[in-house]
Amino acid sequence: MKAIILFGHGARDVRWREPFDRLATLWRAQHPNTAVELAFLEMMQPSLEEAVGPLAQKGAQEIVIVPVFFGQGGHLRNDFPVLLQDCQKRYPALKLSATSAVGESPAILQAIIDFGAAAL
Amino acid sequence: MKAIILFGHGARDVRWREPFDRLATLWRAQHPNTAVELAFLEMMQPSLEEAVGPLAQKGAQEIVIVPVFFGQGGHLRNDFPVLLQDCQKRYPALKLSATSAVGESPAILQAIIDFGAAAL
Repeated sequence: MKAIILFGHGARDVRWREPFDRLATLWRAQHPNTAVELAFLEMMQPSLEEAVGPLAQKGAQEIVIVPVFFGQGGHLRNDFPVLLQDCQKRYPALKLSATSAVGESPAILQAIIDFGAAAL
Repeated sequence: MKAIILFGHGARDVRWREPFDRLATLWRAQHPNTAVELAFLEMMQPSLEEAVGPLAQKGAQEIVIVPVFFGQGGHLRNDFPVLLQDCQKRYPALKLSATSAVGESPAILQAIIDFGAAAL
């Protein structure tokens, strides 16, 4: 069984996570057979490792982690690979992998352009 | 004449801005009659105020600022309105306005869901 983690930066203001909660709700409605968890790099729970646990308990054998970040800077190039490696060591039976940041997706960039154009 | 500013957080690693540069390139290709500038909250140039200047010089009378952020936390709720107000004071003849964060757009959230689904 595959599962997915949507991984965001996190922020002090709890309202920051609202679009992430909406993403999880959308995912569950559209892909009910693929379990999803949110996870955050800092300032919000759960951490990446805390999100992996429940998915493993649900029987996930493969987990794809999607960094919901625009840019690929130090967080994704330096911090994230270490977290991923730590999770892999803790859950050696799981196959963990990660996509590029969502900001690398042409469709997402186009959706941002269209959002801006609609506001003019 | 209307213009647009795509406003991001900024990061230490210069590679973080790559998707923002792509957004500006896409915008110029698709909306050549509406001038665009990037601007950043911190750690990258130009600032919001530094981005407004060139647009005003090009003859912009209205500038729509699109926060390219997922969540609306302290940066957008506290820091950004102050920056916007300061810009408005400095350029009183311009009409400045801002959209919600792009993370509030259902189309952008759907594009993220689709990106995740394609990776499974």
